[in-house]
Amino acid sequence: MEFFSLSKPADALDKYLGLWAPAERPQEVQDIFAAAGRVLARDIAVEVDVPSFDRSTVDGFAVRAKDTFGATETTPALFIVVGEVAMGQSAEGRIDAGQAFRIPTGGMLPDGADAVVMVEYTEELAEATIAIVKDVAPGENVIHRGEDLARGELLLEQGRRLNAHDVGALSSVGMSAVPVFERPVVSVVSTGDEIVPPGAMPGPGQVPDINGPALIAAASMSGCRARFVGVFRDDYGTLLRACQDELHAGADAIIMSGGSSVGPLDLTPKVLNALGEPGVLVHGLALRPGKPTILGLAGGVPVFGLPGHPASALVAFEAVVKPLLRVLSGERATTVLASERARPSVRAVLERNLSSGPGREERVRVRLVIKEGRLYARPVFGKSGLISTLVRADGTVRIPEESGGYEAGQVVDVYLWGF
Amino acid sequence: MEFFSLSKPADALDKYLGLWAPAERPQEVQDIFAAAGRVLARDIAVEVDVPSFDRSTVDGFAVRAKDTFGATETTPALFIVVGEVAMGQSAEGRIDAGQAFRIPTGGMLPDGADAVVMVEYTEELAEATIAIVKDVAPGENVIHRGEDLARGELLLEQGRRLNAHDVGALSSVGMSAVPVFERPVVSVVSTGDEIVPPGAMPGPGQVPDINGPALIAAASMSGCRARFVGVFRDDYGTLLRACQDELHAGADAIIMSGGSSVGPLDLTPKVLNALGEPGVLVHGLALRPGKPTILGLAGGVPVFGLPGHPASALVAFEAVVKPLLRVLSGERATTVLASERARPSVRAVLERNLSSGPGREERVRVRLVIKEGRLYARPVFGKSGLISTLVRADGTVRIPEESGGYEAGQVVDVYLWGF
Repeated sequence: MEFFSLSKPADALDKYLGLWAPAERPQEVQDIFAAAGRVLARDIAVEVDVPSFDRSTVDGFAVRAKDTFGATETTPALFIVVGEVAMGQSAEGRIDAGQAFRIPTGGMLPDGADAVVMVEYTEELAEATIAIVKDVAPGENVIHRGEDLARGELLLEQGRRLNAHDVGALSSVGMSAVPVFERPVVSVVSTGDEIVPPGAMPGPGQVPDINGPALIAAASMSGCRARFVGVFRDDYGTLLRACQDELHAGADAIIMSGGSSVGPLDLTPKVLNALGEPGVLVHGLALRPGKPTILGLAGGVPVFGLPGHPASALVAFEAVVKPLLRVLSGERATTVLASERARPSVRAVLERNLSSGPGREERVRVRLVIKEGRLYARPVFGKSGLISTLVRADGTVRIPEESGGYEAGQVVDVYLWGF
Repeated sequence: MEFFSLSKPADALDKYLGLWAPAERPQEVQDIFAAAGRVLARDIAVEVDVPSFDRSTVDGFAVRAKDTFGATETTPALFIVVGEVAMGQSAEGRIDAGQAFRIPTGGMLPDGADAVVMVEYTEELAEATIAIVKDVAPGENVIHRGEDLARGELLLEQGRRLNAHDVGALSSVGMSAVPVFERPVVSVVSTGDEIVPPGAMPGPGQVPDINGPALIAAASMSGCRARFVGVFRDDYGTLLRACQDELHAGADAIIMSGGSSVGPLDLTPKVLNALGEPGVLVHGLALRPGKPTILGLAGGVPVFGLPGHPASALVAFEAVVKPLLRVLSGERATTVLASERARPSVRAVLERNLSSGPGREERVRVRLVIKEGRLYARPVFGKSGLISTLVRADGTVRIPEESGGYEAGQVVDVYLWGF
């Protein structure tokens, strides 16, 4: 039996996103110290002026700028130092003509001052007298109240996955708790008559589950709460019931592995079509490994069918499942697609020729090797499905559909595993 | 006051790693479903043969190879089908001359069989008779017991940070629990008379802590358990006591921010030297931003002093602290340094000229922008220290010490934030 048609991964994502309206995710409030990596549940507008006071950007002397006009090395302007600004406190008193306050970087400008002269352009003459040898304009070396962020301004948008910088910025505008989307629950179902759960003793002809733990790891590292449902025999009724139970229990997505091809024994398409409308949306990717991949929806809940072969399952996860889990988590689809297209890579010299057949993108697993200070990409070969090859590759070289391959010695992009 | 000398980040790491003998980390056992991202605490040698039985790699018929010799389209060899192998079960009976068993991909070879003929090269003639039109060599389409991984073979090395592939491989050799190193506890101390803790109402001249939450996020996302100690005034005794308390409480590392420069009010070097031997090892990086950075050791415990300026603190964290936290976590130093040198990047067209002074590496924050399908790197400018610039950049362009800068229109490497 043959696939009806194969979709390029990018086209499969476009089609899927065109047909899927993700449900609004529930929200929760996360302490600022635990908010990194989470997805912002609403736009964050600034509720305070930042800074909340006129602030010096240098160590020096706060003055009225007009009193410094014309000051030079040869014709310095003299000032009386009438006070000192302490960090974290408002200045006591105010500045009048010809007066200055000593002020540190970050200090609050005293009343009356509108600029700061850097200490490098001053000279202490006597106890409380300084000479200023370079004039300043009003506002020079000062960040004004609200100049950085004005009240009402948008700081971060809903759907942003927060990094360390974002978390710092949220704290700076007074937030100690952050509204984020709950992480989606992703149920992982392994199928195959020969598969036993991790740690169980395999009998003759049986093998331990690989995809269950690997996909739990991949989904967790992609920001989801991953739940291992178990290993199931290739039996239509059992599989359907297991998936229905997950939906009833509130799963936000289901990932099945095994049985995703087009043979009579491949049950995933049938189970998915019985689970809910509209069922299978994409069946078959123009991707190698990863061809027998299914993207579907059961009543709004994404259900994915991945190949049983672990290397294929993880390549398909990377190409199409991870982006969709990011959207499910509350990230904007446009952001996700843009970041998928701008995925970072390592450039390395290819050690061997890589040829590729037409009609599909190929992702060849490679190991990065340093030889004489240069980085090389060494293709990981071996009979299909060997476990030993699973742990040897650092990532993949992508051979686009329209390319015939690459030659040894060429510099190629290596995409490291993201999970 | 001036820095005595500035170290290149790579030299600072080399020097530090030459002087530091990290303590052996305590171990714990993690369930296989929660092992991803953790660091393996011992070498994992395989205790079973993988596969544990001779396994077919295709759908077809198990046979004795010698019975197929000479079979072609025009002179097919005839076989009697005497049984069928079910997935996950051993075959009942054995194969003799001229006999075949139907076998699925992954099925266990019946006794007597030594090869599998793909179904594509067979033709069903009658109820239990097939014609084979292409001969097979012994072992063809078979993975032999132990051929993938033989008992005693090394699968993964101590110090490996486990990814999804690794987790799958560990499951495949029968592991359901994995020995990993405990994640190090990293205590984060914020300093500055003007700083108030996240969420506290700042008084006049005060500002909320940014570095505390940002560094907690960065350390967590680098695989550590991060603990926020609090915000402390610039007081030598208070700071020293706070750090001593952390050491007594079992901190595996301390990160301080603020007070890391060389002025009389910069207390971090003094506190670090009083905390324990040998104290400050590196003070000052040839890096912008990030110059006033301190790397030290107090009785074997890493203590880092980062600049108070948040953008600088995070760039210094990325350049020198994160690699050392990875080593602290149990990863091998050689692996960490190699992966830092092979860090993935996104290539983008620079939108504006970037110039750089001599004697230091510069990391310019940029935002990635797509225009007409091309990726551009837009430098994020603005007065130093603006919060608004913190959230605008996606990563940095690195201008090496020996380069004067880059020109608009040039393609540059953008290193995305890793935390």
